[in-house]
Amino acid sequence: MAIYQPNARTQVARLPKRAVYDKTQVHAILDEGFLCHVGFNVEQQPYVIPTGYVRAGEKLYIHGSAASRMMRQLDRGIQVCVTVTLVDGFVLARSAFHHSVNYRSVVMLGTARLVVDRDEKIDALRRFTNHIVPGRWDEARQPTDQELKATSVLVLPLEEVSAKVRTGPPIDDEEDYALPIWAGVVPIRMGVGDPVPDDRISPAVEAFDTRRLTRFF
Amino acid sequence: MAIYQPNARTQVARLPKRAVYDKTQVHAILDEGFLCHVGFNVEQQPYVIPTGYVRAGEKLYIHGSAASRMMRQLDRGIQVCVTVTLVDGFVLARSAFHHSVNYRSVVMLGTARLVVDRDEKIDALRRFTNHIVPGRWDEARQPTDQELKATSVLVLPLEEVSAKVRTGPPIDDEEDYALPIWAGVVPIRMGVGDPVPDDRISPAVEAFDTRRLTRFF
Repeated sequence: MAIYQPNARTQVARLPKRAVYDKTQVHAILDEGFLCHVGFNVEQQPYVIPTGYVRAGEKLYIHGSAASRMMRQLDRGIQVCVTVTLVDGFVLARSAFHHSVNYRSVVMLGTARLVVDRDEKIDALRRFTNHIVPGRWDEARQPTDQELKATSVLVLPLEEVSAKVRTGPPIDDEEDYALPIWAGVVPIRMGVGDPVPDDRISPAVEAFDTRRLTRFF
Repeated sequence: MAIYQPNARTQVARLPKRAVYDKTQVHAILDEGFLCHVGFNVEQQPYVIPTGYVRAGEKLYIHGSAASRMMRQLDRGIQVCVTVTLVDGFVLARSAFHHSVNYRSVVMLGTARLVVDRDEKIDALRRFTNHIVPGRWDEARQPTDQELKATSVLVLPLEEVSAKVRTGPPIDDEEDYALPIWAGVVPIRMGVGDPVPDDRISPAVEAFDTRRLTRFF
């Protein structure tokens, strides 16, 4: 089993039994999600900004919409924490104290750098798009040079990585199991609704099949 | 209209037309979500940790599970950025470049402090629980003194706050509208599945009605 070697910065401090360093499990979480929260500092003030990402091997590509506040630091790389969280269920225990949430989260530390190589940038953009809708990149009108310049992509090597996972039923205190209170898990997950075509679409264009959004099916 | 006055730290830098400072709109986003990402520094390294929260007036209570790495700094308060993000849809444009996401996010800056007052702490815990399942607090076995001590709650005043919202269809370049490519919005939202009672529940206990999770209905 290949693992991300924990260090003092990535060792899970609270509830270490929930810690996961296995690369296969970490990759599966990253490949299921699409939204990350990027943390970085501007003049010692932490900022946390949501943006899109996609994994490619041991690299995480982060959509540059997160970058505007950190632009000035980008030429020398920027220290970040990127976190991806999937929520799987509400865990209702008999005691208020043992209520919890089933979730899978990945925390990644390191130095994010701007992708400057043109081919790598196009490849990353293709991956972003196809990560949401498989095959979409080839359908869409391809980016012009100007559009490429207007988009920034960051890359973070997956080195300092830890995951945390909670699954299963509530764990109540032994004496509470006899209480006449419903306890269990209410599963939650992202679902997809009926596509809303834009007003100017030609009637000749085939409707969008949401089953292409494979993460929801 | 009451607003959060933007300053240099909270002024939305990128795509300012998406900025929202209106308190009513910010509150609505916070009240719909339940998961936040808390950013803070440990030795200049930013960390971003997911945890639960609930709003009470102009205060945000943050569940202390985020706190273990910052415990040492908690007695003097800790500089944080707390971000809440709701994703509403994938926006598919005719051009790869104009693909986007409909979302609502709130970014809150400030100093989070540990809640030490016993009544305020119990009130915050009650709010956390009822924020997920209305009325749940009164059904559950109440916390003991020991359980109260084992739970930490942070409070952040809502002062430096901004939101960012994207809604509506894709905005393509004028010349792209004629392309025979599907374009529009695929709505996504959190959905709830069938409750899974825990193995040791008494058959006399009434089944859980998921319609109580009002945010999903």
